[in-house]
Amino acid sequence: MVLDRIADKWAVLILDRLRDGPVRFNHLRRDIKGISQKVLSQTLKKLERDGLLSRAVFPTVPVTVEYALTPLGRTLTDAVAAIAHWAERNMEAVLAAQAAYDARAGGDPG
Amino acid sequence: MVLDRIADKWAVLILDRLRDGPVRFNHLRRDIKGISQKVLSQTLKKLERDGLLSRAVFPTVPVTVEYALTPLGRTLTDAVAAIAHWAERNMEAVLAAQAAYDARAGGDPG
Repeated sequence: MVLDRIADKWAVLILDRLRDGPVRFNHLRRDIKGISQKVLSQTLKKLERDGLLSRAVFPTVPVTVEYALTPLGRTLTDAVAAIAHWAERNMEAVLAAQAAYDARAGGDPG
Repeated sequence: MVLDRIADKWAVLILDRLRDGPVRFNHLRRDIKGISQKVLSQTLKKLERDGLLSRAVFPTVPVTVEYALTPLGRTLTDAVAAIAHWAERNMEAVLAAQAAYDARAGGDPG
């Protein structure tokens, strides 16, 4: 259940963007490459429903909607960050393993 | 890229099952609820190609195939475990947040 949220790539990217403070819907939309308006608003709703982020509406014209991590969301984001750092540290090792696998598979009639 | 692997729920579950040592294909198949033979073998291939697990074939009849974490896979599994523990610790808080959200949404004509 929660793993679904964590296994939701867009949720992970949204949580990561909120680490440094509240962000507006449009900034998230522009910042997260490839996310559609519909997927962004659906995922934000799921994260809000899970208590991982809060939503604040400001009476500007047009209205401004800002999202922020809740304390609960903060604890998850720290755990998720550990994986992001793992990816940065081990990217080369993964790419090397893929090249070796492809070379073996290339020569392997099996 | 690596985030795709981490955002792949089945990959996360497979890596977690290998934490205590090598496991055979059939045990993985039986142990991970809901995974099909095809998805299991595809995901194992992806994880092997990424250098996260190794594959050993034993000449029994029929042949036995065992998968084990590589050192690289072990470092990722530790990072992933932090999220699994987060889920266990915070499950109740998430469920409470969902109930409150649904109650508000239920009453909210918006």
